[in-house]
Amino acid sequence: MRARDLLADFPTVGLDSPVIDAARLLADQDLPGLIVVGDEGSPVTILPGTEVLRLAVPAYCQDDPALARVVDEAHADAFLHGLDGRTVREALPRQRRELPLTDPDATVLELAALMARTRSPLVAVVGDDRRLIGAVTLQALLDRLLTR
Amino acid sequence: MRARDLLADFPTVGLDSPVIDAARLLADQDLPGLIVVGDEGSPVTILPGTEVLRLAVPAYCQDDPALARVVDEAHADAFLHGLDGRTVREALPRQRRELPLTDPDATVLELAALMARTRSPLVAVVGDDRRLIGAVTLQALLDRLLTR
Repeated sequence: MRARDLLADFPTVGLDSPVIDAARLLADQDLPGLIVVGDEGSPVTILPGTEVLRLAVPAYCQDDPALARVVDEAHADAFLHGLDGRTVREALPRQRRELPLTDPDATVLELAALMARTRSPLVAVVGDDRRLIGAVTLQALLDRLLTR
Repeated sequence: MRARDLLADFPTVGLDSPVIDAARLLADQDLPGLIVVGDEGSPVTILPGTEVLRLAVPAYCQDDPALARVVDEAHADAFLHGLDGRTVREALPRQRRELPLTDPDATVLELAALMARTRSPLVAVVGDDRRLIGAVTLQALLDRLLTR
């Protein structure tokens, strides 16, 4: 079994995409994060869902989440408006997460080793031109290995 | 909207559960990790799926994933046997991940602040006795906030 047998389409966002679009993708699909692609369609990093929240939640609440409880409820439900006009680039952590890359010929052991080394539940699979073909998730890998 | 409105059952494993059971839960459900509970039913940490792979993948492959490609394919597909007889406790990283805890009254802003601060896509919700009631996921939170 090779990466090509485990590949699935994976939603991507651009560096200058509105981050609210990223939030919608994360809400619609149960994903560990989104693949961020550069102008040429090659994957550059992963945007973890929690970074989207870091951009939306006021800093004083992150420092002390208990403070958030004193915010009145209507306001508490509206904090995602903090994402209006912001881009994916702004949501990325200063130290960008390593998104492991491989090619369609990678074995399952190689995929697992990449996930283990980088602690990423996702490996991006690229073609010879470095463009994204799809991704292999930890779940897909375990599912295939345990149901054979 | 409060934590109690977003709660879902979440699968748990014990510290001494077989780690292969954890792998099966991760394969069956698309989860960012599993909640590890102590003897008294109170959550102690989260087991990220990638840590299960770290326990199964031989160290020489993690250091250099390209080496994994030279392993013959039948053997490459069988590496999960490395989990036989191992426990969840053995799979946990030395520095355990912080699993944020809250109570059913937490507001959505508080839940988001907890996820943002700890970079955990999951908040465990506990009762007065510290036992796990359920969990709120990042996806559930974003889904409810964006579809109101």
